[in-house]
Parts: sequence; C-alpha cells; structure tokens
Amino acid sequence: MPPDPSLSPASAEAVDEFALIAELFVPLTHGDPAARGLRDDAAFLPAAPGYDTVLTVDALVAGVHFLPDDPPDLIARKLLRVNLSDLAAKGAEPVGVLLAAAFPRGVGAGWLRGFAAGLGQDLATFGLPLLGGDTVATPGPLTLSLTALGRVPAGQGLERRGARPGDQVWVSGTIGDGALGLRAARRELPGLAAEDVAFLADRYRVPQPRMGLGSRLRGLAGAAMDISDGLVQDLGHLCRVSGVGARVEAARVPLSPPARRALAEGMVTLADLLCGGDDYELLFTAPPAAAAALTALAAATGAPVTRIGSILSGGAVSVIDDGGEALSLSKGGWRHFRAED
Amino acid sequence: MPPDPSLSPASAEAVDEFALIAELFVPLTHGDPAARGLRDDAAFLPAAPGYDTVLTVDALVAGVHFLPDDPPDLIARKLLRVNLSDLAAKGAEPVGVLLAAAFPRGVGAGWLRGFAAGLGQDLATFGLPLLGGDTVATPGPLTLSLTALGRVPAGQGLERRGARPGDQVWVSGTIGDGALGLRAARRELPGLAAEDVAFLADRYRVPQPRMGLGSRLRGLAGAAMDISDGLVQDLGHLCRVSGVGARVEAARVPLSPPARRALAEGMVTLADLLCGGDDYELLFTAPPAAAAALTALAAATGAPVTRIGSILSGGAVSVIDDGGEALSLSKGGWRHFRAED
Repeated sequence: MPPDPSLSPASAEAVDEFALIAELFVPLTHGDPAARGLRDDAAFLPAAPGYDTVLTVDALVAGVHFLPDDPPDLIARKLLRVNLSDLAAKGAEPVGVLLAAAFPRGVGAGWLRGFAAGLGQDLATFGLPLLGGDTVATPGPLTLSLTALGRVPAGQGLERRGARPGDQVWVSGTIGDGALGLRAARRELPGLAAEDVAFLADRYRVPQPRMGLGSRLRGLAGAAMDISDGLVQDLGHLCRVSGVGARVEAARVPLSPPARRALAEGMVTLADLLCGGDDYELLFTAPPAAAAALTALAAATGAPVTRIGSILSGGAVSVIDDGGEALSLSKGGWRHFRAED
Repeated sequence: MPPDPSLSPASAEAVDEFALIAELFVPLTHGDPAARGLRDDAAFLPAAPGYDTVLTVDALVAGVHFLPDDPPDLIARKLLRVNLSDLAAKGAEPVGVLLAAAFPRGVGAGWLRGFAAGLGQDLATFGLPLLGGDTVATPGPLTLSLTALGRVPAGQGLERRGARPGDQVWVSGTIGDGALGLRAARRELPGLAAEDVAFLADRYRVPQPRMGLGSRLRGLAGAAMDISDGLVQDLGHLCRVSGVGARVEAARVPLSPPARRALAEGMVTLADLLCGGDDYELLFTAPPAAAAALTALAAATGAPVTRIGSILSGGAVSVIDDGGEALSLSKGGWRHFRAED
C-alpha cells in the first residue's frame, strides 16, 4: 500500500532513502533466484517434496525489545538470530527470510548501511538469502518484523507438545547470560571484571542460535522450544501445551563462569537467572534412553547439553534446591531462595 | 524476544491484553493443523509437490498508510486484502497468513475485538487460516505486517518481468477509485452524491483482490502486478523490470461511473486517477492473440478486463490523449491535461 500523501508528505529524501534501501538490500538476496532480485513484490520458493515448511515471525520495537541507540548492525543480527533460534527449536534447517521494516523518518544512510551490513553478515554466516520484504517510514520507533522460513522432513518437526511423563528435561549452553547481559550492556555490573562484562553483553546482543544441534535433535527429543522468555516461564509453556508438569533441579542448571561469579558476588539472584529472558538456548525433553545419544551429539556439535530435571504427569513447573525443597515464584522473584542463602 | 522490563514495565493490563489476543486470534486458525493452535511459535506447512510457494509481506503504519481512527475491522481487512492482491497478481492461490502486530499500549479490548473480527471475517471469505504471528506492545503508532503465502504450479507464477514488445496492456476493474475513495472517506468530496461517496470510500477501505482472475491469467498473461502505487507508476515498474516501454491510451482507461462524475464535475483530474494509489486492480500484459481468451475469462470470472495500451520496445511509459499527443508527468501531476480540457 502506498503511503497516503495527505497523511505523510513524501519528500525527496524519502525517495532517496528507498533507493538506498534497494541498493543495500538487493545484495542480501545472494542472487537466490527465489528472491527475484527483490523486484517483484513476492518470492517464489521451489517445492521441497518430503519436507514441511516451518514458518515463524518475530516483531521487535525500539525501546521495548532493544535500546534505541543499540548499534544498527547488532539490532539486525539479533533480529535474524532470534528467529533462527525458533527454527532450530523446531529441528528445522533455515531456508530464507523476509523483512518488514518501519524506519523512523530521521534514520540516516549511515544507520541503514550499518543495519544492512549486520543483516548481510549474518545471512552469510548462516548461508541464507533475503527473499523479500517491505520497507516503510514511520513517525514512531523503529519497528522490525522478520519472517523466517525453514524446512524439516515431513512430520519430523519438533514441537512443544511432545513432552511425556518420565522424560528428562535438557537445556543447551548456559542459562541466564541473556538477562545478565542486558545489565552488562547497560553498564549496570560495574563490580564485574571487564572480560566478564564483555562476555555477557555479547551473549545478550548476539545470541547463538543452536542450528546444528536443533536439526540433529529430530528423532531424539520429544518436545523442544527455544528459551526466550526465561527458562521457568518457557518450561511452563512447554508443559501446558504437553499437558504435563516438570521438576527442575536448580543445582543442575548450567551457568557460565561469569554468571557464577555475578551470583557469588550477590549481583544477581538465581531466580533472576532462571527467569530472565533472552537466552536463546534450546529447552527439550527426551526419554532417559536417549541420554547417551544426546551426550554424544553435544560432543559432535560443540553445543553442550545438560539434563536439568524431569517431566511429571501433572502439576506445574517446580524448581527444587539441593535439599529437595520446592521453591515458588512470587511477583518480585523467587521466595526464600537467594544467592548465598 | 521478551520485552525488556527495564525499558517497558509490564503491567497487569498488558498480561490481560495478551490473554485476550490469544482468545481472539486462535479461532482465526480455523483449526488448520499447520497453525498448531498458535501454541508453538511456528507453523508447519505440508509440502505441495509441483507447486512453488509464493511469499509476500506488507507493512502498514497508522497515520502513514491509514487513518489512526479508521474502524479496526476495516484496517484488518485491508491489511489482508492488499497482501492477497499481491498473490493474485502472481497467479497464486492463497494458502495462509502470518501476522506481526505492534499494538499501542492504550489499545482496548473493544478495538482488538473489532480488529480480530474483521480479520476473521475476511479470512473466512477467502478460506484462509491464520498460520502464526507475533503480537507486541509499542509506544508508537499501530504497526502491522502481514506475510501471505500462496502457491502456483511450479514455474507458472506471473511476474513483472514478462512483458514483451507488441504485447497489449490490460487492467482489471476500474482505475482511480482508490485515490478518490480516500478523499471520499475524509469527506472531501461534498459535491458528490451520497451513494457515489459511499461507493468510492468502500473501494478505498475494502479493496477487492482479484483472486479468481489472477490464478486464471497463468498461461495467458506475460507480465502481471497489482496496482498499488498508481497505474502509471506501477506500469513504470513493470516496464523497467521487463526492459520495455509502454503507451497507454488515456481514453481507454476504465473509470467507474462515480469517478466519471467526479471528473466531469472537476473535483479531480484524470492525472489524479491515473497516478493515484490503492486501486488493487491487476495490471498485466498479453500477446494480441490472447485477447479473445481474456475477454471470455472476464465474463467467466465476473472481473472485467480492459485493454488500455501496448508494450513498446523501449522508452518510458507514455500516456496519449485522443489526439495522439503524449502527456508528460510533472511533480504536481500531469502537464497540459486536466478534466474538461
């Protein structure tokens, strides 16, 4: 739809901006014929017989999901990576992406170049084309939406609904770095060593979608999802959809060395780490018989996996401490459970 | 990605809002298993061997692409229809849609219900499921992005690049109603009869994507696109991509009776109609030998088609008047060509 000129007068700058966008984004198709050089308002993706197409979309708003003055290349890379993380959690191989971007009127060519460069860098990293998109101007904050397409062998996609009582609960990587990383990025962890701050901020700004691991979980995992809202909340989502409960052993939850140090220094509670968002690690369940295969898979893919608990036949998600006592979440965090308790 | 609580404190209302959205949007999946009940952050679309998947995305911003106080059901319906119009122009059958919506914090349950009702009504009209999406809060204006999926038999999709010298240029329906309709919706055409105002406003608010016609143009049309930016501009896009020029005979361009009356009354220039946006009619080219089949197709589908000009081997797009004189576009509209000239 064209912008309504009576609502937002077109300017010479706006025209130049769109020319700039065409110049910046067409190279990101990497010549994939499906993108038709972004000249046709649509992409044409050839059939992949025997595969399901997996589709996911995420919207991000400046000032809500990221800081308005975050570097544009990192905004673009995170936008892509959070969507790829969703595909990884489905066991899918990524195929391509479509971008819908509402850029504030004042956005400059330098900012757009940075954004396109970051997107291009990561599309190349993951071997993906930009298949299409739409760019518009907005009087409001930068608002981005990315649709990611992937594929899985028919019927083999991983879903949230596959957890069964008796399954074990696993996570990839380490938990809580994303939430700590936001604080690190905002320079709110002055007591932490510079390299720890850098590690955590990078974990927040540039998530590592577990593509290699995700696609190889097919046939091993029962249920899977990626952790974006926080381990406990997301495990709750998974259990609700699967009609089961879960128990997590707090001491088993893998933490990075910087997160352990922040916890030891009292800068953060374990509750903050278990409930913080932005991890983009995989959360999945599997029968006990799959444990050895999962451990071998972790070694093969370089993505560590850790068993953190069990699926129960009912109830909600509980987290228990070393003494076997169940912890309960209150609005402000966890009750009777703090670092150094 | 979760909203960053330090950037935008979550409120009880926000939580209720998301529950409401789940309640409102899940029914729009129409039980299509591909949507997984919107509970899985992803859709799983079965393979369609022998078909290309056609993908298109459009972003709309309140105050830019529609009036902020437009009825929510009509905003939703137009969002869907402009995307379906893109699919029709590719000769595709629609399969489903994904919605990314950034709702202003103050949006109420009534507004959301209206939006979902309008979307649901039109998804039902076109027999489509909502396959997935993402809803977030924004401190800015309502910002919507819809990804539409369609399919065409492999290699048979219509594209902009297929125009050849000697082809005839055709349009469906009537041209210029959208641009006039915006003015009608804003009550800027007081001299026009009430039923004309209503007709035009409806043409602007609820475009009629030419689904039946589009899919049956496969094999007949050379190049095709939908008219969203204005007939002349969009024909320019088509010609540029195809490496050709075009000549349009102004007198042949089909106008609706209300548009003819507005033109006769001097409320609008022909230039306004030929360059105005929001028509969502199909613009296509075909060899002269296809003319009889196209006329028969129009009768069969109830979508009138009109031949308005010819594709030339080079040059830009020209529009000629009855005397054969070429008109040229200036910034403010057409030079030396006004209604009643």
